[in-house]
Amino acid sequence: MHRADPELRKDPVLGRWVIIAGERSQRPNPFRRYTTALPAQEPCPFCPGHESMTPKEVLLYEAGAGSGGSGGAGWQVRVVPNLFPALRIEGTHDKRGEGLYDIMRGIGAHEVVIETPRHDQDPASFAREQMAEVVRAWRERMIDLLRDTRFQYVMIFKNHGQAAGASLAHAHSQIIALPVTPARIEMELTGTTRYYDYRGRCIYCDILTQELADAKRLVAENADFVAFAPFASRFPFEVTILPRRHDPLFQSLTPELTMTFAEILIDVLRRYKLALNDPPYNVVVHTAPPGHPHPDRYHWQVEVLPKLTEAAGFEWGSGFFINPTPPEEAARALRELVRVMDVPDGHLLPESAR
Amino acid sequence: MHRADPELRKDPVLGRWVIIAGERSQRPNPFRRYTTALPAQEPCPFCPGHESMTPKEVLLYEAGAGSGGSGGAGWQVRVVPNLFPALRIEGTHDKRGEGLYDIMRGIGAHEVVIETPRHDQDPASFAREQMAEVVRAWRERMIDLLRDTRFQYVMIFKNHGQAAGASLAHAHSQIIALPVTPARIEMELTGTTRYYDYRGRCIYCDILTQELADAKRLVAENADFVAFAPFASRFPFEVTILPRRHDPLFQSLTPELTMTFAEILIDVLRRYKLALNDPPYNVVVHTAPPGHPHPDRYHWQVEVLPKLTEAAGFEWGSGFFINPTPPEEAARALRELVRVMDVPDGHLLPESAR
Repeated sequence: MHRADPELRKDPVLGRWVIIAGERSQRPNPFRRYTTALPAQEPCPFCPGHESMTPKEVLLYEAGAGSGGSGGAGWQVRVVPNLFPALRIEGTHDKRGEGLYDIMRGIGAHEVVIETPRHDQDPASFAREQMAEVVRAWRERMIDLLRDTRFQYVMIFKNHGQAAGASLAHAHSQIIALPVTPARIEMELTGTTRYYDYRGRCIYCDILTQELADAKRLVAENADFVAFAPFASRFPFEVTILPRRHDPLFQSLTPELTMTFAEILIDVLRRYKLALNDPPYNVVVHTAPPGHPHPDRYHWQVEVLPKLTEAAGFEWGSGFFINPTPPEEAARALRELVRVMDVPDGHLLPESAR
Repeated sequence: MHRADPELRKDPVLGRWVIIAGERSQRPNPFRRYTTALPAQEPCPFCPGHESMTPKEVLLYEAGAGSGGSGGAGWQVRVVPNLFPALRIEGTHDKRGEGLYDIMRGIGAHEVVIETPRHDQDPASFAREQMAEVVRAWRERMIDLLRDTRFQYVMIFKNHGQAAGASLAHAHSQIIALPVTPARIEMELTGTTRYYDYRGRCIYCDILTQELADAKRLVAENADFVAFAPFASRFPFEVTILPRRHDPLFQSLTPELTMTFAEILIDVLRRYKLALNDPPYNVVVHTAPPGHPHPDRYHWQVEVLPKLTEAAGFEWGSGFFINPTPPEEAARALRELVRVMDVPDGHLLPESAR
């Protein structure tokens, strides 16, 4: 295989596609520990003044007069192609077989959202307006990428902290446009359809009703969104953020909803920071594939996963998770904090305590 | 929820069961980093002379005259109930609903296989006979546990190294008997059935034929088993060990096959140790559920997963994996090593190099 050419390969039994992206690693030295960690970068390629260290931006929001946090950068949020892309933007799918295996070229897009010009600003201490600009960038890039008919799905996610997969400290999120729908989303569509066929309602709308009535797994809420620890949480302190109003698509976010979504996301991240002492975490946006024929069955949502335990062989091999923390207990610990949103913008904890 | 009572909860959308096992964690302190790591244990509860630190054994293989490695313990392999069990052996399922959610009591067994009396003996340097005794214990416990009709599946797995989920250094593996079939196994059964319906053959038998013909993903082989890097590997240096002869059940292993299986497992672990400098890894046995009605469709196998990368939000949220190392490259690196099986029994690398 030519290293410059990422591939998508389908697991012949599970039907799950995997990106084989040779370019993202160094060639392994068979007698030294293999690592995919990037070397510590000094200077930081995401800092103002170093814009030439990244590919040219595909989107830039200029710093507004009242934005405060610009740090003299001239920009507030910047989206650039990933320097080590898992997928390539050029070409056609070129689907083919190799004996009983299925393979296609790794066509897609892989972009990085630089969320702030300030190197050491923690997303948990973003002003609501700053986070709203990040979410606006996610949405704008998603809509733009979906204009390319080769792409079936756009994943938006954030890795915070090295143990959660981040390779650079400067706050950033990632956008990956895929030529196939991810297995997890397919499974969600299957599950929501099964429920809809039986009850004629969106399962997530019903979950929302039950969580609000039970209240014991609630973490935070505002006028438009509810954050709760899911009933069958795989991981300790896992949180789902659901919009109150049914909508299958993340990209339906209005400017008003963008602001209240930013608010609840910051709220959850601040609760993590206080309750769990700044843990590594992942944020993943779940949305229906574009053109999904049954908009009444899917409900967009965001999954927030702190990385507090090592998923071990049992979990990877069985798809069966052991969670040592009941979600009711996690929710109570997160809920019982002081009203963190009342704390003025800025670092809640000194950096030295991280 | 009462902490002493583990629960199985079903994800209402994905249909996946999760064990909520409160007893395995300390109560979270909301203002300190949450951890599930066990305190460093001194003395080691798995060492000879400390047998009273574990629950009483359910299986014990005495040290044979010629076994060498007994270290004066009187035993060679010891199987004990887990002191921090994820599941409870007593009681009935007590399946029930909670609004739209499904729940059952966490009935099951959770056992630990202490693989050697020697505290610092690495499984990669086990003699073939020692590993065969471990595999014999796996099989014997699986057969015994499946006599209990409450159990639908028995998972056998091994976590080596802290990053792979091990909480104690002394070599051990784990056995979990479950009241449900794990989601991953259900998906494998669905995938193998789909292939069988189309072609009338076991997909794993066909994979074996193709891997042997292609040869480029082969890692090791012997008379009865083949180890290869799977075509759609999710992780760098992932290896699958398949028996050459079709059989759906791990517990069909004869004494002869137990010996050749032990041989190839040690071979793979030694290659990891040399090529990847003693990485953390997981070993997972995949076998058909007992009484599976279509024995011609499933083929037992073992998955070996080194823990070299952090699975990040993208992977957890999408079920879509990005693997930076093409399996052909991983297989070549593992294959090109000296014939590690020729090295006499003992530590291949000094402990100081670990």
